[in-house]
Order: sequence, then structure tokens, then C-alpha cells
Amino acid sequence: MSEIKLDAYLFCRLKQLGIQSVFGVPGDYELALLDLVAENGLTWRGNPNELVASYAADAYGRVNGAAAFVSTFGPGELSAYCGVAGQYTEYVPAVHIIGYPGVSAMKAGAIMHHTLGDGKFTFCHEMTKHITVASAILDDPASAPAAIDKVLTAMMIESRPVYLGVPADLAHYPISSKNLQTPLNVTLPPDDTEVTEATVKEIRSLIDNAKSPILVIDGCTHRNRCVEEAHELQTLSGLPTFVTSMGKGTALEDLPNYGGVYAGAGTHAAIKDVVESADFVLWLGRYGSDFNTSEFTMNVAEDKIVDLQRFYATIAGRKVDQKMEYLLKALIENIQAKPLAQAKQVTWEPYPLRNLPAVGPLTQDFLWNALSKFFQPGDCIIGETGTSAFGLGDSYMPKGSFYFNQTIWGSIGYATGAIVGACQAIKEGSGGFKRGILVTGEGSLHLTAQAIADLLRYDLKPIIFILNNGGYTVERLIHGKTESYNDVAQWDYANMAKTFGPAFPSKYHGPIKTNEELVKLIESGAAREDCFQVVEVTLAPLDAPKSVLLTGAAIDEFNKQKTLPGA
Amino acid sequence: MSEIKLDAYLFCRLKQLGIQSVFGVPGDYELALLDLVAENGLTWRGNPNELVASYAADAYGRVNGAAAFVSTFGPGELSAYCGVAGQYTEYVPAVHIIGYPGVSAMKAGAIMHHTLGDGKFTFCHEMTKHITVASAILDDPASAPAAIDKVLTAMMIESRPVYLGVPADLAHYPISSKNLQTPLNVTLPPDDTEVTEATVKEIRSLIDNAKSPILVIDGCTHRNRCVEEAHELQTLSGLPTFVTSMGKGTALEDLPNYGGVYAGAGTHAAIKDVVESADFVLWLGRYGSDFNTSEFTMNVAEDKIVDLQRFYATIAGRKVDQKMEYLLKALIENIQAKPLAQAKQVTWEPYPLRNLPAVGPLTQDFLWNALSKFFQPGDCIIGETGTSAFGLGDSYMPKGSFYFNQTIWGSIGYATGAIVGACQAIKEGSGGFKRGILVTGEGSLHLTAQAIADLLRYDLKPIIFILNNGGYTVERLIHGKTESYNDVAQWDYANMAKTFGPAFPSKYHGPIKTNEELVKLIESGAAREDCFQVVEVTLAPLDAPKSVLLTGAAIDEFNKQKTLPGA
Repeated sequence: MSEIKLDAYLFCRLKQLGIQSVFGVPGDYELALLDLVAENGLTWRGNPNELVASYAADAYGRVNGAAAFVSTFGPGELSAYCGVAGQYTEYVPAVHIIGYPGVSAMKAGAIMHHTLGDGKFTFCHEMTKHITVASAILDDPASAPAAIDKVLTAMMIESRPVYLGVPADLAHYPISSKNLQTPLNVTLPPDDTEVTEATVKEIRSLIDNAKSPILVIDGCTHRNRCVEEAHELQTLSGLPTFVTSMGKGTALEDLPNYGGVYAGAGTHAAIKDVVESADFVLWLGRYGSDFNTSEFTMNVAEDKIVDLQRFYATIAGRKVDQKMEYLLKALIENIQAKPLAQAKQVTWEPYPLRNLPAVGPLTQDFLWNALSKFFQPGDCIIGETGTSAFGLGDSYMPKGSFYFNQTIWGSIGYATGAIVGACQAIKEGSGGFKRGILVTGEGSLHLTAQAIADLLRYDLKPIIFILNNGGYTVERLIHGKTESYNDVAQWDYANMAKTFGPAFPSKYHGPIKTNEELVKLIESGAAREDCFQVVEVTLAPLDAPKSVLLTGAAIDEFNKQKTLPGA
Repeated sequence: MSEIKLDAYLFCRLKQLGIQSVFGVPGDYELALLDLVAENGLTWRGNPNELVASYAADAYGRVNGAAAFVSTFGPGELSAYCGVAGQYTEYVPAVHIIGYPGVSAMKAGAIMHHTLGDGKFTFCHEMTKHITVASAILDDPASAPAAIDKVLTAMMIESRPVYLGVPADLAHYPISSKNLQTPLNVTLPPDDTEVTEATVKEIRSLIDNAKSPILVIDGCTHRNRCVEEAHELQTLSGLPTFVTSMGKGTALEDLPNYGGVYAGAGTHAAIKDVVESADFVLWLGRYGSDFNTSEFTMNVAEDKIVDLQRFYATIAGRKVDQKMEYLLKALIENIQAKPLAQAKQVTWEPYPLRNLPAVGPLTQDFLWNALSKFFQPGDCIIGETGTSAFGLGDSYMPKGSFYFNQTIWGSIGYATGAIVGACQAIKEGSGGFKRGILVTGEGSLHLTAQAIADLLRYDLKPIIFILNNGGYTVERLIHGKTESYNDVAQWDYANMAKTFGPAFPSKYHGPIKTNEELVKLIESGAAREDCFQVVEVTLAPLDAPKSVLLTGAAIDEFNKQKTLPGA
């Protein structure tokens, strides 16, 4: 029987799943493990802290299809749990590999560092079960291959994070390599084809009989890696096609049937009218969260909706055992065989604020529309939670670009860590993307700013837009407009790259204070030159995209309802 | 019945416990809560991220006796769990206040942001139970006063972290203020005085009958706030007095009976001989963890030890139901009434490397001894896990100074966040300290570097020693001496304060590359001027204090033992 070191087995499996880089932070329980990363053909992309590593892995997973990151037991992994929970919430396949104390130390109940000091080693694993779909501590070499395979298969099938603990004294332990000859089966189990046929027929009939059918591409379309199918459906069907905040970036905005962003109360009026008066909605990967629905203010009756999810579909409220991927493919075949009647043309402006005059101090509304002219095919854009994620709904995203934000989990600081992973995936050729672009408020940037050092030292050349508005603008709009708790520290962003990576080329543009200055910068192309780029834009503390103003008011209302519990 | 807003009740209780400042990061579920911080006479000290907030609260709690910090549900709190677990492990009383979604949203099972997207709101509370001693979600106004009182009492009695969730829609809800008239009873329950008398008599007899009795002040002495008693015992008894790594900083090093640091295999030879040949050891607050014992290499037989802990004592392995605080006081009274026979004088050098010549490139051994001349009464010094925490064992700490590190949990990045809380407590007059000093490696600094912005904007004027040795030196010494995974980014530390707080005065000294330059800087007093100070010292990547070299080798040995599980 041929053998392989335990952790080498793990890294071979990661490579088979298309993972090329591993993120993380070294720690003494995992050092033997780290020796095997490069030995097995993977690239180690160490990060300044574990939260950054988890965010980098998140974005890498979204762009690449799977991701891995390493931390040490205890402090290391706990520092990453926020990122893991974000992966869980937003369906990102990532494996969190943890360097555990040695089996000998654990069996002896020794009071090891990085523990709670009680000789117990289970608390982390117990905590992580809430935010992962599978986990194992690989403390038994004989069962390790099967355990690794099971956990990684769950990661891919569920498209969610998993957890593997590797005791320090077993990292190099020889285990059987036999299973490695067969790649993991990560294909979703097939559906009952008769049910598929009937379901497609039913959906087709609903479309054909509707007077004003529309297509909505929501966040779980990309999370289920069905963006190509969504594009094909949008193209073939000709249906007016909308996105949500979470789905923004996954429709083909160049097509004449792109209709704009639907966000309940936060929607531009003309778009809102069309969506809410549609008599049939084919909704791909719906995620009915507060932020994705502008605080539950969407107004589309359930009986008009067919919603496709990873493992099931819902037809007017009735659940059907059909998977998004297979159902979409069957529906596309159906439409290819028998095209739809010509769909109603989009007669409204999907970007209502497109042609604002380039005069006066820089405003949010002007900014987002100006970025429409900045983005290019090949861009992979990440918008931070807050004004950026809302505002980018108003930006045109060209064909061949990709955009995402962390709509549900909404952890500020995410985007700055995430751009590291996105840029690394881009560098490896994932998705044919060319350039990573980060759009973030300055308060959010502060949470994970040390990620900038990685962007510089790994030569990842992002373009970073920093919205400097003197604090947490979204929070101000929700509550505490002028309260000092919504202030943040004032940094010198012109100086920042020189602090985090003095040896690497970088450019700073700004502070951009007027609409005209922004236009000039974009037209000059200076911010797209081939090195690390920072564009600092100065915005008024209470300026925000219209959608934020509407949503913020709804959230404060929602939060402060004086509910008497039990009433 | 007089009433008070729910969160105002909480903040009043915190004030009664001596807490003056609250750390944290705003989030929309907690904004209504934050309105009440200043209204109730507390100072809001917002931080750039939650991990920094939790570390700041940790140090504030150690210096001040109790601490509080606020984060938002989900991402905010999960980002702080590493810091909370550190508080738990190292006995720091701190309350983590979490802004929860509204009771109405939770009852409705709404898909809120910052959740896992499943309409459930219990996962965070479940996770946190592993790392706190008490917790409550204040979703019922009627029982809220009792719940708050119970949780805060547990924090003080157990000297460990607790968790309070405050739903957004109840922050301002009126509750009864009646309990506030009576301060919380946070005194430890009294012991049986007959048992105390017998135990003191027994301990006294053990000391009197020993030929070479010694005193060891370990980490849990300070954690149980018995430093004054320890000082009195050291003074009165005249016993040769040693500290451990975790206890360093809590003995009176000016007294002629201070004997040095005992760290098992990592101990200087003369000191090791004395401790290991003692025939009786009175050990205050022993914590037998790997790092505090140089990987379990201490060699003192259990039957020679009397160990005092918060809730019990151990006499030659026999557990006695006696609390450290009361037992120490009774022992002091006993010795006051009937002094000990003259104890053996300390005849060895407690700082064996004290007089190294100031020539050649800067070395670790020279550095730690040079700092002995830098530290002053009133300094509150934090040493980062790694070479700093080990190395500072060789530094003389003058009377009236205080030093600590995070020996057991050992989360790198801790010290840089912690100095914010220590400096804030100093500013408020806690302990009569005058200046906060941080000693950290550059790799550790990177994890939480944004804390520097707080040190600047809150005018906390720390002195920061950055040990720049091109990566994770302790990790290199354990495993992977020249591996690139132990590299970190190279920042420009001269530029750093100007990036994080350009508006505030700061001074940079360095890079200090020779022993002579360091002596000159210390003698000049320039680094003690009254503003934010950075001293960058350049050290060889594999240079380390002798204790680290010994301990590192022991750890790698321990980790790589090829244990066959089940064998």
C-alpha cells in the first residue's frame, strides 16, 4: 500500500478541487503542516491576521470555486470565526485547516498555550459546529483519508465552509494514499428527470401565460455557480431582467433587457413599478434578508414567484424537489427548442442617475454613476457593506466583469480582506478576470487595513477607492447622525501604501473633492496604471445613495419598535 | 416605582463597579445603546475593530479591576471571541455587551443581516457559552435588572468574562431602577475561620521547619488582585522570592530577597538550582501551563508545594477549601504577630545578563537588560507573546511599575490592542501608573496595528518598542528557521504614526541597530518625552533570549513526537 503524509493527502485533495493558493497565519501547532503546502504544489499566501485570511479565502472561494486557509488552534481560529460565519451565511466553499496541539498533549490533558487552561481541547470544535457544515479532528491516521474526503465533499456539495483539525504530531504521519487516485465526486445528485420535465413544462406555461413576466437574478445564483446559465437564460428568454443587491454583478447589463436593481423601498420608482406590477417572476437564488429586500419592503406576491435554489425550487409557494443547476439547464433547453414569444422591451432607464452634471462638490450619486465609466471588462469588483454595496447598484458593470458584496453577513472590513483573495485568484487566471477593484468606506477599511501589506508584497495591484466621509455614514443615517461614536480616526491615505509596503510601487490620487476632479481622473486613465492604486474621494458625512437613505430610515424604524415581549 | 432605561441600568452598574470607559465598535443594532454611554457618565472609547476592543478591555480590566466593551451581534461579536477567550483563560473580569436585533425581529424569525440567514438568533450565545462564565439575553424587561445583576456579579466573583445581549428595541425600555440603590455584592464568600486558622498554622509550621523555604509569585496572584498581599508577604517574610513568566512584574524586585524568574528549563542556572533545591515552596497563584513552565520542565516536587488559588489552596497535593485572598491576609497577620526567623539571603544575581558590554550589533540579551535602565516607577508595561514576553523576564521592573503578558492564551496581536486599554486606565488614574509601554515584535504588531490610531487620537502617549527581526522569530526557533511562511511584510515604522494619526504629535527613534545606539537613546531620555513614541530596534532573525532558545527547542520536541493514537 502506497503511503503519503497526512497533510500531504489533504493538500493533494485541495489541488484536485482547483485550489492553487492557501491563505493563513503561521502558528507553532501548524508549522509542520506548512512545510507541506509548497511541497505539494500549492502557494502559501500568509496574511497579517486570521480575519484577513478568512476574508481572503472567502473571495478566493467565490471567484475560484473553492478555497483553503490555515490558522492555529485557539486564538488563531477564533479570530477567523467571523469570516467563517460569513462564508456559511453566503454559501462560500472554504476549508478552515487548524493546527491542533499534538494528540499526545491532548490525551494527557496538558495545560497547553492557546487553550482555556483546563486541559480540554474540544471547545473550538464545538463552537465551530454552529458555522460549518462538516468538520473532523484528524487524530486517527487510519480513518483520516475517509474523514478528509467526507468533509471536503460536504464543502463542495453544500457550498459552505468546513473545518479540519490536524494535530501537530500527525502532520507528517504516513497514511494510505489509495483514495487519491479517484477525484472526489462533488457533482450534485441527479434529480428525478420526470419531475424535471413536468416542472419545466409548468414554469414554461407560467411564462407563456403571463402578460408581463420578468427574470430576477438574486444572490444565490452565483453562490450556486449558475451565473453562466443565468446569462444564457437572460439572453435566450429576452425577459426583462433585474438583480437584487446581492445579485448585482451577475446579470448581463449590456443586453437591452437589463432592467436595473430591485430593492423594495430602496428602488428607483420606474424600476419598482415594473417589478411590482409583473404578473410572473422567475427568481433565481432568492435571499429574502432585510438588507437584500430593503428591510422587507419588497412587494411581489408569493403566488407570482418561481424561485430556484440549490436543492429545491418553489412554485407559487409549493416546494419542488428540483435543483437550480439542473432545472435551469432543462429550462434553457426547453426555450432553445421552442423560443419564447418576443418579450416586452425595457423602456425605462436602468440607471436613472446616469447623466448628472459634473459640477460642485463630489456627491454619492455622482460617484456611483461616474464609476460606470471606470469599470472595464475583466474587472472583479468588491463593494464593502454600507454605502458602497448600496451605491454600486447604480453603477454599470460591463460584460466580463464581476461584482459582489457580503449582503447578508455584512461584516465591515470584509471587502478589504477579500480583495486579497480575489486578486490572488485573478493572478492565477480564475474566470479570466484581469483587475481587482475594492470600493470601501474608510471606517470599514480600518478594520482590516493590514491586508494592504499583502496586496503590495504579493504584487496584486488592486485599485482601491476609499470613500472618506469622516466616520460610519450608514450608521449615522440609521441612528446617531452627529454622535461621536460614529466618528473614526483620520488617517493619511496618501501615505498609507508607503507605510504598509515601502518597497513596492504604488500610486495615490486625491483627495478627490469635486465631481469634475473625479471625471478628469477617470478620463485620464491614471488610476488604471499597472501598480497598486489608491483613489481617495471625500464625501459629506451625511451624503449617501438614495437607496441607503430609504433603507436606513426603514432599519431605524424596524429596530426601535417598542415591542413588549410576550405582547 | 422609579424607572430607568434598560441600558442605562446596565451602565449605572458598570460605573458602580469602577468602570469609567467603554470600548467597542458601533453597529446598527447597538446604536440606541451607545446613546446611553455618555448620558450615564461613562466615556465611549470606540476602536477600529472588535478584536482591538476586546484586547483593550482585557488590559483595562487587568489594570482597573473590571472592563466593558460593546459590539454588534454576529460579525462584531465573533470578531471579538479570540479576545474574550483570552480574558477567560487569564481571569480577566470583562463584560461583552452585544447589540442584538430587536425582540420583534427575533420572534418573527426574520432573515436579518449579521445572522446566518436562517431566522435563528441563538448561535452566538451558544458559541460564547464556551468562553464566558455567565450570560443573558435581556429580552424580558421584567427580569432584566436581576439578570444584569447576576451576570455582573459572576464576572466579579469568578474574575472572568461575561456576555450580555441587549435587543435593539429594548435599549431604551423602562425597567425598575430599585436594585441600583444597593451596590452589587462582589466580595468572595467568607471561609470557615477555624479551617483558616488551622491552615495558616500548618503553612507556618512548614515554613518554620524548612531549611530553604522560598516564595514564588505566579500569574494568578495578580489575576486575583492579591498583589498588595504578595508584596507584603515578600517584605515581611524575607523569603527568597521568585516569579514565573506569567507572574513577572508582580514581585518587588527592589527588595534584597528578589531572586529572579523561574521557568523550568528556561531558567538561568544559578536561579534554577536555588528553586529546585528548595525544601518548601509557598506558591501564589500557580498556573502550570506549557509556556509558564517551559514546556513542563519545572522540577519541584508536589509535596514541597503549598499553592494558593482564588477558591482553594493545595498543601502537598491535598486540596483545602481556603481562598487565596483570605488565607494570604491571615498568613500575613500570623507573621506580623510572630516574625519568621531571618531568611537566607539572596546570594545569586537575579539578572545574570545585567552587565553585557555595549558593543556590536544589537542583541536580544543586551536589549532586555538595557530596558532595565529604561523602565521607571509608574510604568505599566505589556510584553507581546513571543520573544518579548520571554525576554522581559530578564529586565528589572522598578517598584511602582507593573508588567504583564498573555502567557496562556498567547494570542499574538494582543499586546498592541491591550496597550490602548492600559493607557486609558492609566489616564483615569488606575493604580497610580503614569505611562504605558508596549514591547512587541513587528509580526505581532501587524495583527492589530490599527490600534495605533486610537493611541494617537485619544492622546494616550504610549512608548512602543518594535522588535523588527524580519518575521515570526519564535516560530522560526520552534520550526522552519528559514521558511518563507515565517516571513512577514516589511513596513515603514518611521512613517506609521503619520499614517494612522497625522494630526497628532509623535516621535520615531531608530532603527536602532547597535547596542551602543540603544544605550545612547535610553540615556538621552528622548524616547520618554511626553507624546506618542516609537522605538524600532533591528534584531537578527534568529537571535532570541536564552530562555526562548531553550523553550523553543522543547516545544518543537513536544509537538513532533510521533504518537500513534491509541498506543
